[in-house]
Amino acid sequence: MTAENKTVLTETEVGEQRRRRSGRGGDRTRRMSGPSYLNLINDRKKVDLISEDQLEAIHNASLTVLEEIGIDVILPEARERMKAAGADVEAGTERVRFDRGLIMDMISTIPSEFTLHARNPVRNVRIGGNNLVFAQIASAPFVSDMEGGRRTGNQADFRNLVKLAQCYDVVHMTGGYPVEPVDVHASVRHLDCLSDLVKLTDKVFHAYSLGKERNQDALEIARIGRGISREQLESEPSLFTIINSSSPLRLDAPMMQGIIEMSSANQVVVLTPFTLAGAMAPVTVAGALVMQNAEALAGLAFTQMVRRGAPAVYGGFTSNVDMKSGAPAFGTPEYMKAVIAGGQLARRYGIPYRTSNTNAANTIDAQAAYESVFSLWGVIEGGGNLIMHSAGWTEGGLTASYEKFILDVDLLQMVAEFLKPLDVSPDTLALDAIRDVGPGGHFFGTQHTLDRYETAFYSPILSDWRNNETWVEAGKPTTFDHANRVWKEKLAAYERPAIDPAIEEELDAFVARRKAEGGVPTDF
Amino acid sequence: MTAENKTVLTETEVGEQRRRRSGRGGDRTRRMSGPSYLNLINDRKKVDLISEDQLEAIHNASLTVLEEIGIDVILPEARERMKAAGADVEAGTERVRFDRGLIMDMISTIPSEFTLHARNPVRNVRIGGNNLVFAQIASAPFVSDMEGGRRTGNQADFRNLVKLAQCYDVVHMTGGYPVEPVDVHASVRHLDCLSDLVKLTDKVFHAYSLGKERNQDALEIARIGRGISREQLESEPSLFTIINSSSPLRLDAPMMQGIIEMSSANQVVVLTPFTLAGAMAPVTVAGALVMQNAEALAGLAFTQMVRRGAPAVYGGFTSNVDMKSGAPAFGTPEYMKAVIAGGQLARRYGIPYRTSNTNAANTIDAQAAYESVFSLWGVIEGGGNLIMHSAGWTEGGLTASYEKFILDVDLLQMVAEFLKPLDVSPDTLALDAIRDVGPGGHFFGTQHTLDRYETAFYSPILSDWRNNETWVEAGKPTTFDHANRVWKEKLAAYERPAIDPAIEEELDAFVARRKAEGGVPTDF
Repeated sequence: MTAENKTVLTETEVGEQRRRRSGRGGDRTRRMSGPSYLNLINDRKKVDLISEDQLEAIHNASLTVLEEIGIDVILPEARERMKAAGADVEAGTERVRFDRGLIMDMISTIPSEFTLHARNPVRNVRIGGNNLVFAQIASAPFVSDMEGGRRTGNQADFRNLVKLAQCYDVVHMTGGYPVEPVDVHASVRHLDCLSDLVKLTDKVFHAYSLGKERNQDALEIARIGRGISREQLESEPSLFTIINSSSPLRLDAPMMQGIIEMSSANQVVVLTPFTLAGAMAPVTVAGALVMQNAEALAGLAFTQMVRRGAPAVYGGFTSNVDMKSGAPAFGTPEYMKAVIAGGQLARRYGIPYRTSNTNAANTIDAQAAYESVFSLWGVIEGGGNLIMHSAGWTEGGLTASYEKFILDVDLLQMVAEFLKPLDVSPDTLALDAIRDVGPGGHFFGTQHTLDRYETAFYSPILSDWRNNETWVEAGKPTTFDHANRVWKEKLAAYERPAIDPAIEEELDAFVARRKAEGGVPTDF
Repeated sequence: MTAENKTVLTETEVGEQRRRRSGRGGDRTRRMSGPSYLNLINDRKKVDLISEDQLEAIHNASLTVLEEIGIDVILPEARERMKAAGADVEAGTERVRFDRGLIMDMISTIPSEFTLHARNPVRNVRIGGNNLVFAQIASAPFVSDMEGGRRTGNQADFRNLVKLAQCYDVVHMTGGYPVEPVDVHASVRHLDCLSDLVKLTDKVFHAYSLGKERNQDALEIARIGRGISREQLESEPSLFTIINSSSPLRLDAPMMQGIIEMSSANQVVVLTPFTLAGAMAPVTVAGALVMQNAEALAGLAFTQMVRRGAPAVYGGFTSNVDMKSGAPAFGTPEYMKAVIAGGQLARRYGIPYRTSNTNAANTIDAQAAYESVFSLWGVIEGGGNLIMHSAGWTEGGLTASYEKFILDVDLLQMVAEFLKPLDVSPDTLALDAIRDVGPGGHFFGTQHTLDRYETAFYSPILSDWRNNETWVEAGKPTTFDHANRVWKEKLAAYERPAIDPAIEEELDAFVARRKAEGGVPTDF
């Protein structure tokens, strides 16, 4: 089954999209604050970095891995379900091997495009096809800003970063906890965090797959947040989870449990192997892609063993290590190639493609910017649909940076502007203006300019285009300085999105009850 | 005449290319210092940002400009030559109008691909087709480094920057004076500078078109530097000049004189309008491209009126201004689109395409990096052949920065690595290595990794991938700091390229004689 003859998920979506595009029910503020970056489309021709034959070679090698070597699946229930679906489970071990026909049959029912629903329909995101969705940074253990420096994640910073995500349309959704609030006990952390995500934003959010109770709580919070029934939640995916394989070739218990909980409820599973070439994967990009593809296909096939037709996303996260130190490297030429070839694989299977805006910089310097823009270059040429860690990621994901968040918003908006079609029409060709001005004049004051100057060009958040003298007088601010100023202004101006008081009440009651029950079991 | 049926310049080139690619006659050092970035090829499919119809609309509008509005041509001799070629010169004025058939006929003989010869054949550059050539920054009035700050251009910095250009293969040629040495009198500045360019590098260099005596001196210095006859110089283009129109719609006297001198000697003319949308060009990108295209075509046609078949390059330099301040902006989404659509125009005419690596940052911060990488993104997708200002440009070209030079070299090398094909073969697919390691292992110590780790990935010059603790202990260096260290090390290690003593003697004698004659007339 190829991408072309795949079905597109859910019946209610067309009407939903129409409502959404008409702008009804949306927040009023966004219409007053410049261009909207909702509903981005990347309809450029995607890059074929490798030939059809090479693509088939990677595809076939990864299916050989699944057939001959197999994968260790740690959760007994998952092995049982795999066996029932026709996989070869080696008795007395955790090893599972998959016939290539089984894999291809299973993944054939993953929808090529679907909607992920937010509590505010304006914030619904369309995943797959030519849609381009940016999600905020997720899962950093540390947080930093210019004055406060680098510190362990905590609830105050968690909330601030979530509020900042709400402030920009181009950050279409949150991607998890932008920073881990370790000052909230792990047994109830998900309750506080998910409740915050519902209240402080009106965007789609993510549930960590760290034991089935957390998945179940997240499903209930997503349902309450949208004010819908369990049945409607099942017909309208409203929650997503990232499932990472443990490369090489392992699928761990909580991850498999997450697929069972989420796919059985028809929610979105993003299957992302973390295949660092030279460490957990072969030192060649091609070999790392074989590993990525094998693990992704195994996990994706499992979503369909749980529930045929459940929405899922092909995740690629292949990069290389610095061979001198073993440190992970991001935004490298190798990363770009892996992202683009990964897109070819996802399109081959007709499955939406998740990738990331990455860098490994320690501060908000040129490196942070060039690694990020190189990443975005790969993302756009590769046709990424769901871009994780789009805003705020530094240090290879170890630190969520307030200033990097603002820098990334600016970069994402520039990418969005770049993707807008060039307007070529009698008006924009400007023959009359050229005739009026003639040789040796200038266009500053012409009517053609005056009619358009306010919206003619993207106005960056951070770029400092003042002349040198003025810039020196201003104290030689860098992009880092500007971003520091902007996030503080933006956070100060943050307003909570409207929420139905009955929904908020129901949400608070649920969280209180679950806390009273002790939350979830932990190792602490 | 389309790109496909155009002839490719010069007979001796095939053999030259072959010799060059075999590595014979090259400098020995480059083979000992990592990968070579000579002879870059960008064979990716170029991006069609606008449709065929839109491309034709821009094309036709620009020909209408030339037919109906015309261009002011300041040099009487140029107007006479244009009239002789069939253009409509308005009596008593400087206005020249061109029939569209005349323009298309004239540009049809511009070669679609040719070699620009250096005194070291290894440094020859191939212009056009899928070839990608990076030239150093040119023409900055100021120079800066971290400690010395920003200062007026001078000979010491000029020489340092030229030496740095020699140090990196990826800087394929110099692009002019990286900084203007204003401490050398204008009457003899070109003699000293061109002599330095010949001696301190063995790469292709540029002659400013600022009066015909300077062009003639440059031709003689290029001839002497290569140790060839005037006839051989004419059959092997060895010098190039940038011709800027004075937008809107003016071609100034020294520029026209430059075309006459250079094209009549069969040397390379790069015709680049500087069309800032909203200032010297219409506020729309489409309108600015109409203006760019009209001016470029007029100048390019003139090269063929001077000598049919003379090599020339279509230059695009359309960007936008900041509408709040009127300041030029670079590396913007609008710049990217203009670069890519400009590439479509150049390919439509089958003429090699010149574009630039730009930014408008005041320092070496994130902005400097993101604007540059966005520029390079446009350059690669647009199929730029000759990339001016590739290394060292800051502040919209006002300042040559030592640190930005190193940063750009790193960016250019990353682009070169990105363009290398992905190796997909049984070896790189690594099935055996995956089999050996199996689930749960790692690839650090496998033979497959050990065999490849030294060359597996690009090793950046500047990226700091150390962990946070180590980086903090090192004093929190930024990319700016690293670049500062690197340029000093590189400059200290600089070695003059070998030169035939007889050539050096002839060159010195020529320069001494021309200085004794008083150099060239100046306004001072």
